[in-house]
Amino acid sequence: MNLTNEENMQVGMVGLGKMGANMVRRLMAGGDSCVGFDVNPVNFEKLKSEGADGAINLEDFVAKLQAPRIVWCMVPAGDLTESTVMAVAELLESGDIIVDGGNSFYKDDVRRAEMLSKKGIQYIDVGTSGGVWGVERGYCLMIGGPEQAVSLMDPVFKALAPGKGDIEVTPGRPSSTNSVEQGYIHCGPAGSGHFVKMIHNGIEYGMMMAYAEGFDIMRNANSQNLPENLRYDLNLTDIAEVWRRGSVVSSWLLDLTATALVEDPELSTYSGYVEDSGEGRWTVQAAIDEAVPAHVLTAALYARFRSRQQNTFADKMISAMRKKFGGHIEKKLS
Amino acid sequence: MNLTNEENMQVGMVGLGKMGANMVRRLMAGGDSCVGFDVNPVNFEKLKSEGADGAINLEDFVAKLQAPRIVWCMVPAGDLTESTVMAVAELLESGDIIVDGGNSFYKDDVRRAEMLSKKGIQYIDVGTSGGVWGVERGYCLMIGGPEQAVSLMDPVFKALAPGKGDIEVTPGRPSSTNSVEQGYIHCGPAGSGHFVKMIHNGIEYGMMMAYAEGFDIMRNANSQNLPENLRYDLNLTDIAEVWRRGSVVSSWLLDLTATALVEDPELSTYSGYVEDSGEGRWTVQAAIDEAVPAHVLTAALYARFRSRQQNTFADKMISAMRKKFGGHIEKKLS
Amino acid sequence: MNLTNEENMQVGMVGLGKMGANMVRRLMAGGDSCVGFDVNPVNFEKLKSEGADGAINLEDFVAKLQAPRIVWCMVPAGDLTESTVMAVAELLESGDIIVDGGNSFYKDDVRRAEMLSKKGIQYIDVGTSGGVWGVERGYCLMIGGPEQAVSLMDPVFKALAPGKGDIEVTPGRPSSTNSVEQGYIHCGPAGSGHFVKMIHNGIEYGMMMAYAEGFDIMRNANSQNLPENLRYDLNLTDIAEVWRRGSVVSSWLLDLTATALVEDPELSTYSGYVEDSGEGRWTVQAAIDEAVPAHVLTAALYARFRSRQQNTFADKMISAMRKKFGGHIEKKLS
Amino acid sequence: MNLTNEENMQVGMVGLGKMGANMVRRLMAGGDSCVGFDVNPVNFEKLKSEGADGAINLEDFVAKLQAPRIVWCMVPAGDLTESTVMAVAELLESGDIIVDGGNSFYKDDVRRAEMLSKKGIQYIDVGTSGGVWGVERGYCLMIGGPEQAVSLMDPVFKALAPGKGDIEVTPGRPSSTNSVEQGYIHCGPAGSGHFVKMIHNGIEYGMMMAYAEGFDIMRNANSQNLPENLRYDLNLTDIAEVWRRGSVVSSWLLDLTATALVEDPELSTYSGYVEDSGEGRWTVQAAIDEAVPAHVLTAALYARFRSRQQNTFADKMISAMRKKFGGHIEKKLS
Repeated sequence: MNLTNEENMQVGMVGLGKMGANMVRRLMAGGDSCVGFDVNPVNFEKLKSEGADGAINLEDFVAKLQAPRIVWCMVPAGDLTESTVMAVAELLESGDIIVDGGNSFYKDDVRRAEMLSKKGIQYIDVGTSGGVWGVERGYCLMIGGPEQAVSLMDPVFKALAPGKGDIEVTPGRPSSTNSVEQGYIHCGPAGSGHFVKMIHNGIEYGMMMAYAEGFDIMRNANSQNLPENLRYDLNLTDIAEVWRRGSVVSSWLLDLTATALVEDPELSTYSGYVEDSGEGRWTVQAAIDEAVPAHVLTAALYARFRSRQQNTFADKMISAMRKKFGGHIEKKLS
Repeated sequence: MNLTNEENMQVGMVGLGKMGANMVRRLMAGGDSCVGFDVNPVNFEKLKSEGADGAINLEDFVAKLQAPRIVWCMVPAGDLTESTVMAVAELLESGDIIVDGGNSFYKDDVRRAEMLSKKGIQYIDVGTSGGVWGVERGYCLMIGGPEQAVSLMDPVFKALAPGKGDIEVTPGRPSSTNSVEQGYIHCGPAGSGHFVKMIHNGIEYGMMMAYAEGFDIMRNANSQNLPENLRYDLNLTDIAEVWRRGSVVSSWLLDLTATALVEDPELSTYSGYVEDSGEGRWTVQAAIDEAVPAHVLTAALYARFRSRQQNTFADKMISAMRKKFGGHIEKKLS
Repeated sequence: MNLTNEENMQVGMVGLGKMGANMVRRLMAGGDSCVGFDVNPVNFEKLKSEGADGAINLEDFVAKLQAPRIVWCMVPAGDLTESTVMAVAELLESGDIIVDGGNSFYKDDVRRAEMLSKKGIQYIDVGTSGGVWGVERGYCLMIGGPEQAVSLMDPVFKALAPGKGDIEVTPGRPSSTNSVEQGYIHCGPAGSGHFVKMIHNGIEYGMMMAYAEGFDIMRNANSQNLPENLRYDLNLTDIAEVWRRGSVVSSWLLDLTATALVEDPELSTYSGYVEDSGEGRWTVQAAIDEAVPAHVLTAALYARFRSRQQNTFADKMISAMRKKFGGHIEKKLS
Repeated sequence: MNLTNEENMQVGMVGLGKMGANMVRRLMAGGDSCVGFDVNPVNFEKLKSEGADGAINLEDFVAKLQAPRIVWCMVPAGDLTESTVMAVAELLESGDIIVDGGNSFYKDDVRRAEMLSKKGIQYIDVGTSGGVWGVERGYCLMIGGPEQAVSLMDPVFKALAPGKGDIEVTPGRPSSTNSVEQGYIHCGPAGSGHFVKMIHNGIEYGMMMAYAEGFDIMRNANSQNLPENLRYDLNLTDIAEVWRRGSVVSSWLLDLTATALVEDPELSTYSGYVEDSGEGRWTVQAAIDEAVPAHVLTAALYARFRSRQQNTFADKMISAMRKKFGGHIEKKLS
């Protein structure tokens, strides 16, 4: 049985990919017992050797959990999350909890929470940040859902979160045993966890692009088109390193950038093709829903779209107009 | 001698490229006599057969002009304009007029005007719009410089400008014989002609990109990533045509776009590589000098920069960060 | 009975606001007979005196129409369109046609068309451009829906559209009696009319902002912060007028701008608060759905959002950071 | 005499405002001796009591320095830096060093360095980051200028810089006693220090705006225009705190934001009026000089411009067009 004190909990994890497996590891390291399930049994094998309990199918999986059951779904957002949550819900009973720990769209959470509440199942949405580092550093958790279920799961969240560590509490903040200082937060009702995570990622897009543009300008500072006495051949690897120390732009993203540049100073192992994974798009939609201007976050998203094309119909149309009014013939893209 | 009434004038034209030669043609068609000079004699040959007088060198050219001389320079902006204006100025005398009809940076005009005024030479900057169509439709002229010289040259400007034609005067505008309704305008002192032309081009960049983005979205409306019942296979050539009739986005640029699409509905003869020619950049600089936000005009400029690269260091940097925090491996650009 | 030749048709119009009433007028001027209905009877009175037939309620309205009935709904997009279309559909029978002529979101059209087709009712979405000028100039029509119904209604569309007028067909375009050259177009299946109209408005936002930014930079060209010899006091009213003649940026929007500036050269009767009406937002969503960058159209939308606030939380946050790292104390907004 | 080993140095500081005075303090704390001068004697008084030597005028100041003299100018960028550097240079002799530690435009550095080199004076440009925290944390220094002079001054830079502290060197980086890991870097020839600092600030603008937009969207998440079940009343203070722990967007700027929010959760003590100080503008210029797209950094700059106006001429122009084509009458800004 799950206890609301700091006693150990039992968590069922559906989806044992990179993120799900690492969360199981962190939970087990904290003393919680875990039952894992993945449609691909291969994903479970390594975890089994590390002490996790497994299941041959969802029915078996649910049968191994003690009520009130906690099923944490860690599968790709979209159709897969939808079908997984629904399949799990079929097997649970009133009082059980389903956690969607993926990167779902918050409006889907609201809809699912309303649907499941009719059956007495409590739905919690958790946005997690920390990436591949989370297993070691802990996961920053943004949680949405009903107070009662969130409270019940507090020991689980605490185990996953980074804890206070050596990051001092912000000066002036009343001292407390608040979860916030442990790296997890109950944001509000259904969807609010993923909403806050979505904005987190939107900000991340903007920050990344701010660095990227700045480094691009530095890299092109020795362009042959510039006057010779205004050309600089800058060492970007060193600049990233020095900015980590005492500058205003120091950040974890800069630390990672510095690592990438040490490994590959020209970044020539990267193609320049950049994926986006939903949150950036939803952030723009949320901005539009609220009529809040979001130039920076949107431009960062569009840069990713643009990175995936060699040339655009829009650009061709500009050339076509230039030819028509000015007789301009453009060069070929080399 | 040049007369300030509508009598015919004599104009010397330095630079007989596409623009300069066409302006000579339009001036001669209006009854003005022209002396042409180009460092490349080949450029003069066709004009000679059309009745223009030529010169073997700048000295000869100036000798053929009657005081007060009018020398219209129509050479590429930048170093070539600077050296041409300075070489011409060496040979002129007090009371003569130099016109820079190219796309110069307005701050260069101000500097040159101040320099030449010491010698008594009057400097006029003229921004011209109309492109390859100007020889037929007339050139929209934006003029900067001292009142006296601009007045003296009025018949020249009138000959180059489109005239009233069939474009009705804006309702409510006091009837007048104002030059504005003939398609030319004295904007203010030195540099103001090119300043207004610069903004004209800045706006042009923005309008072109507005159309380009819109058509790009329409072209991708049948993307396989969209749900099947929300996919449209739109006929862009027809849409451009229909918008020319009664819609809010009708414009001359749209007329040209419609022509380009009739010729090449896929725009497959265009590479997508788009040049920029200075005014877009200077418009952004002017906006920054004045602290006026110019998101649209700037984005249109940046799209051109972006069109000339297959992938950017900025994009690679985004991918590098994504790999470092999330273990994301990007696809290759196909 | 409605005939598919150019014989006169009967059209029922629901919603007799500015747009609906004017469309009735244009239809009657073309010889079509119209039955009008508006929840607010006052809106019908003027039309009655001009020869339109009216109805006391929807039932009466439908009863006055001959099968196959054509009911054109011209009510504000959103809930009101939804409820109107549904109420009308209740009273119609298989073979009848409902036209949504408002500014609906195209995904709503697709949903409604699928729903109504089950009852045999044909749904047509029509985007119209032309604003308050349409009654005189004609409306540019962008039409989505099933071929059969669109064909049947051809005479109605022809009556509303501008017709060829004095706008020459684009050179190279095969001569035809195509509707496109008359100013109306059948874009594709359900929703495509509003999709194209949405993009039209998105482009309109971008073009408007391109002009607006350019004029703003010109207006601030005499800022006291600029060096005295680089300040210009420009006559924006004259510049708008001159650009209408032979310049690359000539357009109908520029004609309207010139009119507005003649009436109020400082635009001091405008507050600077700018509404947006849906299509700009949906255009951005469509761009995001397709992963097409749309910097310009989006920036134009965000400028409207920004115009409606005196200061933003975002700006305050920037000031807060500046104070914290640099001790900077900002001025007050005057 | 200044020694090139780690022995103590003597530094003359011109400009004893917030930054200059704190740098003197940090230098003295490191064992260096300092002579200070400020046109406003009041600024020296506090430093005097802390052990700094002063001077009654520039001549006296220079006389107190031992050759090769090091004069560090810490005055506002622009005219004041120009006149100060020139006045100091008048009094120095061949072999002496002038440091411009302010936020100068790098092209001014290049010009000044060339000018001073004729007299044998070595010019060093130093961009410093760290703000009001530098006196304690140390200053991140970006240095441009001739190798010899930069080497000579190494102990001074080391004293000002943060040192290794507890920030681990990036993994994979070859171990060294490199200055970079101490927080200072010799970027290249004249101007390169300020160039790198300029980009640093450009990035800073972009990062700040990324956070600001994200928090603004979160703050408006309870807007009355949203459906009730999609409204969130978020605690921004707690969210800033939690993101400091294990999230991808953790940074020093976020730490400062968290502090600001603890003090004033509504940020109601800030007006929303945001200054900019040059580097953001120059970063955009550099991007344009190099033809590198910089959407994010530019948008961040424009947001500051916009914050300083209650309404814009651009917005009024949009309203004017809307009225003219659609009869739309806008609300008043409340």
